[in-house]
Amino acid sequence: MILCDIGNSFYHYYREGRIWKEPSNAAPKTLKPDKGEEIYYISVKEPATKRLLELFPEAKNLGDLLYLDTEYRGLGIDRAVACKALQDGVIVDAGSAITVDILQNGMHLGGYILPGLQRYRNIYAEISPKLDKAIHYDVSTTMLPQNTADAISYGIITSIVCLLERTAKNKRIFFTGGDGPSLARYFSHSIVDNSLVFKGMLNILKER
Amino acid sequence: MILCDIGNSFYHYYREGRIWKEPSNAAPKTLKPDKGEEIYYISVKEPATKRLLELFPEAKNLGDLLYLDTEYRGLGIDRAVACKALQDGVIVDAGSAITVDILQNGMHLGGYILPGLQRYRNIYAEISPKLDKAIHYDVSTTMLPQNTADAISYGIITSIVCLLERTAKNKRIFFTGGDGPSLARYFSHSIVDNSLVFKGMLNILKER
Repeated sequence: MILCDIGNSFYHYYREGRIWKEPSNAAPKTLKPDKGEEIYYISVKEPATKRLLELFPEAKNLGDLLYLDTEYRGLGIDRAVACKALQDGVIVDAGSAITVDILQNGMHLGGYILPGLQRYRNIYAEISPKLDKAIHYDVSTTMLPQNTADAISYGIITSIVCLLERTAKNKRIFFTGGDGPSLARYFSHSIVDNSLVFKGMLNILKER
Repeated sequence: MILCDIGNSFYHYYREGRIWKEPSNAAPKTLKPDKGEEIYYISVKEPATKRLLELFPEAKNLGDLLYLDTEYRGLGIDRAVACKALQDGVIVDAGSAITVDILQNGMHLGGYILPGLQRYRNIYAEISPKLDKAIHYDVSTTMLPQNTADAISYGIITSIVCLLERTAKNKRIFFTGGDGPSLARYFSHSIVDNSLVFKGMLNILKER
């Protein structure tokens, strides 16, 4: 069985614990199922889905089987499927946006969206050339900044960390996405896991 | 005596408690001192300063007299002068950037910089058209969001408010700048005061 998470930039694949990816703006090249091997996918990118289905018309959309207990309207399929990976905890997906979702007893309690770290950095540069500074991921979140570069890194990191701490309280925080590790280091009880979506997909299959 | 705060967009004036402004990209038109009346200014915009000094060569730069007890390197003159307005408290200047400065017994303990509210809104729109939503200033900071628009407003507002609460603890928070009132409403012990810079200028004159 092969699982495929079709994102805006990549096809992400999972097969027996192995994870790999390839660009989703062209037809899949590295997806080679054995004869009769099942393919399940979820997708946020329609043209990439079409390209997959042209090669593998028998691939099944797991989004059709998804049931998540939530009041949230407009939850992206990738966020919803990652939520199926756990019963309790906070999921932080740190990419071009940072999405945060809260689970309790398998129920999705709600979530929120912050700008991605690189996007924060860009806004400062747009406000003034004086504020065009790289983010320091070793900035102290307890000492007050004493120069412009630290003032910016502190503003970005501490505003995010403060809110995540308030959200998580004593829940575990699962970080995923490209900037997951950069944020996870500020939390002692954090877990970095880039397979949350696949774990969610496996759980959806189990629930059938 | 007339005080003048020369900003990137406006000349801001103060005379006996009255405050007014005019664009700083042209020569001052509304500045009409009495014979022998003193003019003191601070400035972050050199060309606008020149235009003022051409008309009023006797105007004095109060920046030359400023002494602020701080370790911070690169503090803008407008932030530094506002700091002279108080002995204890937190100053939040919410404009195109949100600057935060902390004072204790007249000493500046440090500060940090967040993007301005309108800038936050713009980043989301840049990430995805689906995230192009106006900020709701009535979003609850205690209830978890259940839709995209609330998820964005909550992300922006609550990440800022959470950090400001942590910074201020039991200190008073003084809000200034165009978005000051929008943020002040989230704090029970907040003060909105658009004359902080002028109060600081008056204190510098007293200290001479």
